[in-house]
Amino acid sequence: MKNFIVKKFGGTSVASTEKIKIIAKRIAEDIKRGERPLIVLSAMSGYTDSLIQMADRVFPDYQGEAYDMLLSSGEQVSISLLSMALKKRNIPNKPLLAHQAGIQTSSFFSKACIESIRTEKIKSLFKKNIFPLIAGFQGVTKQNEITTLGRGGSDLTAVALSSALKIKTCEIYTDVRGVFTADPQLVPKARKQKHLSFSEMMEMSYLGSKVLQIRSVEMASKHGINLHVRHAFKKEEGTWITKKKENFMEGSLVSAVAHDLNTLVIKFNKTAEGVGFISELFTKLGKESVFVDIISQSGIGVPARLAFSITKTDLKKSLSVLKKLKLDKNISIIDGVAKISIIGVGMASYSGVAGRFFSVIKKTKARLYLVTTSEIKISAIIDKTSLKKTARALHKEFDL
Amino acid sequence: MKNFIVKKFGGTSVASTEKIKIIAKRIAEDIKRGERPLIVLSAMSGYTDSLIQMADRVFPDYQGEAYDMLLSSGEQVSISLLSMALKKRNIPNKPLLAHQAGIQTSSFFSKACIESIRTEKIKSLFKKNIFPLIAGFQGVTKQNEITTLGRGGSDLTAVALSSALKIKTCEIYTDVRGVFTADPQLVPKARKQKHLSFSEMMEMSYLGSKVLQIRSVEMASKHGINLHVRHAFKKEEGTWITKKKENFMEGSLVSAVAHDLNTLVIKFNKTAEGVGFISELFTKLGKESVFVDIISQSGIGVPARLAFSITKTDLKKSLSVLKKLKLDKNISIIDGVAKISIIGVGMASYSGVAGRFFSVIKKTKARLYLVTTSEIKISAIIDKTSLKKTARALHKEFDL
Repeated sequence: MKNFIVKKFGGTSVASTEKIKIIAKRIAEDIKRGERPLIVLSAMSGYTDSLIQMADRVFPDYQGEAYDMLLSSGEQVSISLLSMALKKRNIPNKPLLAHQAGIQTSSFFSKACIESIRTEKIKSLFKKNIFPLIAGFQGVTKQNEITTLGRGGSDLTAVALSSALKIKTCEIYTDVRGVFTADPQLVPKARKQKHLSFSEMMEMSYLGSKVLQIRSVEMASKHGINLHVRHAFKKEEGTWITKKKENFMEGSLVSAVAHDLNTLVIKFNKTAEGVGFISELFTKLGKESVFVDIISQSGIGVPARLAFSITKTDLKKSLSVLKKLKLDKNISIIDGVAKISIIGVGMASYSGVAGRFFSVIKKTKARLYLVTTSEIKISAIIDKTSLKKTARALHKEFDL
Repeated sequence: MKNFIVKKFGGTSVASTEKIKIIAKRIAEDIKRGERPLIVLSAMSGYTDSLIQMADRVFPDYQGEAYDMLLSSGEQVSISLLSMALKKRNIPNKPLLAHQAGIQTSSFFSKACIESIRTEKIKSLFKKNIFPLIAGFQGVTKQNEITTLGRGGSDLTAVALSSALKIKTCEIYTDVRGVFTADPQLVPKARKQKHLSFSEMMEMSYLGSKVLQIRSVEMASKHGINLHVRHAFKKEEGTWITKKKENFMEGSLVSAVAHDLNTLVIKFNKTAEGVGFISELFTKLGKESVFVDIISQSGIGVPARLAFSITKTDLKKSLSVLKKLKLDKNISIIDGVAKISIIGVGMASYSGVAGRFFSVIKKTKARLYLVTTSEIKISAIIDKTSLKKTARALHKEFDL
């Protein structure tokens, strides 16, 4: 559809009524320039957290319909306020919650998947030149129960709407200027990247970059939606994430250094009991939706030494699984670690990248716990104190 | 329906997560005693106000769909949290927003009227022994747009649900022990009333008692729903409002003293221009939904002296009407006034009540601006500084 564009604004872009007014001005200017936006919003920064805090005081760790209904009120507030700010500028618009926009999901509360979007309502609004303003992060089941899509779910809402409406460009407005070669707070020399391929961006999201939610990049890749990550309060272009990065490529081998502090290692002290035990353990962890990241096992059969990394917030669930399997006395928890990774579609075709990666680790004297590699990335769990110097050294080694 | 009961909790009853947990405990105990409650909630005390403040920063005085969508998020938060608190006590329950409960209203945003309630959903929940938890104050139009019912609208939701489901008792939980013979803060000797008739309660709501929203009393009267106003955190009985007060009556002439500070007087200085002018003025004020309360006109024809009282918050709208009619130079606004009233179904059959009322006013030396009477009440606008002593003197005069 010509001039149609999806614009998704993150929580920091709508963090206050002042910021909402600035965003309304920006949208009004874009419309004046001929754009026909569909707007998707996150909750005001901090709003969802304060709702979660209340929920935790009432029923810690509860998951279910009431929790999702609670959280979804955050986006309801932000779209209402932006709608008013646009009305004040005489921009005709209509705020739509998930049930009004017809965003239907599975009934897996707090981690629901979008199953279908009824687009008639939105299309009829566009026909009347009324711009739709959609609450991100939320959906409804077939039974009209409110669900949420998990943290960062507004990105998913935006991409799913782009796909359903066949809108080719989806702008993701955020509080950074784009996707960088490394976190600028960690590596001051980090540069903004002009273009990334979908697979590079997926690896980066997976490896700890918080700019884009991974499921939304997957979906964009599948449906060929061009993503444009950019700053909500700056006019400059940000980072484009498209199918054919090759067109724009500067031929770099490694395109980014990523890191993630939300990790810890669980290590088995004594000899473990072989494949059967491992399969039982990971099946049970999976059932509790614990996300197991890197697994390392030295030697097949007995005596095997097993260690794996998990998301920090899953520790409680993991320990309860280990306890049920009577393995909780047999483990050490290694905290104070971080995951450092290098990513690049160029890596697959060149040898020697892994060698250079490990020589950097050796040079920075980082303590190495776990390692994993794929065609386009190498990740290692190292001690947190070595993170900064290792990130900088990798950034330098690969000329980023 | 046997043992079925509607329980509506006001904002102060659910003002914090701690209070929500106490309410959950109370409901659980009531269920244990055999009650089958349908629960209606207001937003947490202060929540709606903070939403209004945000709205005012974005677009002052805006009314429309976005504003109602914003405000309705308050009840969404409170029912989600109470649902979780009840789940923690293993009470099966289901939180329902207006669109899920099928509460359909007119499309007059911010002041919508309930047109119908689809009860199938609620009935099917009761059949499964799942207690419904309904967001008060909100509705949806036929086009599935969110509306709100105006301040105190949760009372209306509760009574409308009682009526639609033929549940004969509706408990209104609040932060006072019941309806008093006067505001205890103004008249320390004020007593809690055991019973009131619908018409007495309507007059009291109309005359400034904030315990119950007037439209909800009207609706309860029309459908014969017995209301029970009681304290959310005390076990004692509160005040019953029923059709036949006579059964319980102690034969009192006057049953209460009410007051209202949310009033001011607009007085015309110069000679006004007769009936035509008055009709035009009040028609235009009505169109802007300005609530004109007491009107006084001395002498018919010319020269007539006109004065009337309005709700304070309607001053801005009133002045704009007066300006359009080029009358704004011709008026004085008298602020610093209050309305004081006496109410009682007994008044109609006894003479001399008005005489006693005015002799009290004379004794307290209150300055009298406007007066109005009906079969069951006398109201006067007096200076605010005399309010307290006049209220106490009236309370004493009529043996309350």
